[in-house]
Amino acid sequence: MNALNAMHDSEIASRLAKLDGWARDATRIIKIYRFANYHETMAFVNAVAWVAHRSDHHPDLEVGYKHCSVTYTSHDVGGLSARDFDNAAKIDALFSL
Amino acid sequence: MNALNAMHDSEIASRLAKLDGWARDATRIIKIYRFANYHETMAFVNAVAWVAHRSDHHPDLEVGYKHCSVTYTSHDVGGLSARDFDNAAKIDALFSL
Amino acid sequence: MNALNAMHDSEIASRLAKLDGWARDATRIIKIYRFANYHETMAFVNAVAWVAHRSDHHPDLEVGYKHCSVTYTSHDVGGLSARDFDNAAKIDALFSL
Amino acid sequence: MNALNAMHDSEIASRLAKLDGWARDATRIIKIYRFANYHETMAFVNAVAWVAHRSDHHPDLEVGYKHCSVTYTSHDVGGLSARDFDNAAKIDALFSL
Repeated sequence: MNALNAMHDSEIASRLAKLDGWARDATRIIKIYRFANYHETMAFVNAVAWVAHRSDHHPDLEVGYKHCSVTYTSHDVGGLSARDFDNAAKIDALFSL
Repeated sequence: MNALNAMHDSEIASRLAKLDGWARDATRIIKIYRFANYHETMAFVNAVAWVAHRSDHHPDLEVGYKHCSVTYTSHDVGGLSARDFDNAAKIDALFSL
Repeated sequence: MNALNAMHDSEIASRLAKLDGWARDATRIIKIYRFANYHETMAFVNAVAWVAHRSDHHPDLEVGYKHCSVTYTSHDVGGLSARDFDNAAKIDALFSL
Repeated sequence: MNALNAMHDSEIASRLAKLDGWARDATRIIKIYRFANYHETMAFVNAVAWVAHRSDHHPDLEVGYKHCSVTYTSHDVGGLSARDFDNAAKIDALFSL
């Protein structure tokens, strides 16, 4: 199984279990990050954008005053791929800096 | 009518008619902006954040690869206020730069 | 005189006189903007980047904790052009939002 | 030696030797990062700002079209501290993502 294939349910469950706070929604994984204020939220949004750029894999974002939700799916495989989980882990690492 | 009051339907319709591409959804106004690529989308998101900061009035954003939706409402009045339309106009001006 | 030509001293003096806080340094114009904190500084830096993108004319920036200096020159004409002053005015307008 | 003390020359040399591309300039360390275009430069600048925010330790930046220089010093100790090198390593890690 490489990044270019859609993952099966068992693989998804296995990868999800290694992450903290991410939830599966059909063909997507989502996490909501909480912040102290708008500036911190925007700073994180930009850090996520850097990860997206470097990996050439771009999440959908919802940005509110004190939160940002990050949603990953792999449109090219019509489901979840290893790339989604790889980036989820990178973004969690950024948040924990 | 000042910025601190919720606007009536007739006022909302009048202000909306002066904007381009904004739609009303109950107590919110929404516009979807389109971009050439992810970098341009993010650059615009940050420009919107500057407007939000300077006016101390913060929209909700949905950010995709080539689009960004901006949603304004005035939580403090439980509806739409002049501030929502003022900022909508400022963001349109930024987009048209 | 269009944007593609280097400006003469008299033109430069005339344009500079219409701006607030910009100084000429040989073939460049520079302004230092002050902010309340780092977040505000970064928000402005990003707003400047949007102007730079939209006009396809990019300044050099120096970014500190509570200030950002913006420097414009027109490398393509080896001096100052109308584009430098046009963008200086746009960035001043953003700062004054 | 903790983060709150200025480092001695031998410590500085030792930490510097573990980094790639950073140079010492008296009480500061500096690195110039190169990028493909302005958008990539700005994306990195924002990623650096996130690291700065999370660590509450803020570098000076010089931002050009295809490069960004990052300068760290510890004003509170009047020299270089472990925090400067810790953040230099974090920023290198971001760049290598």
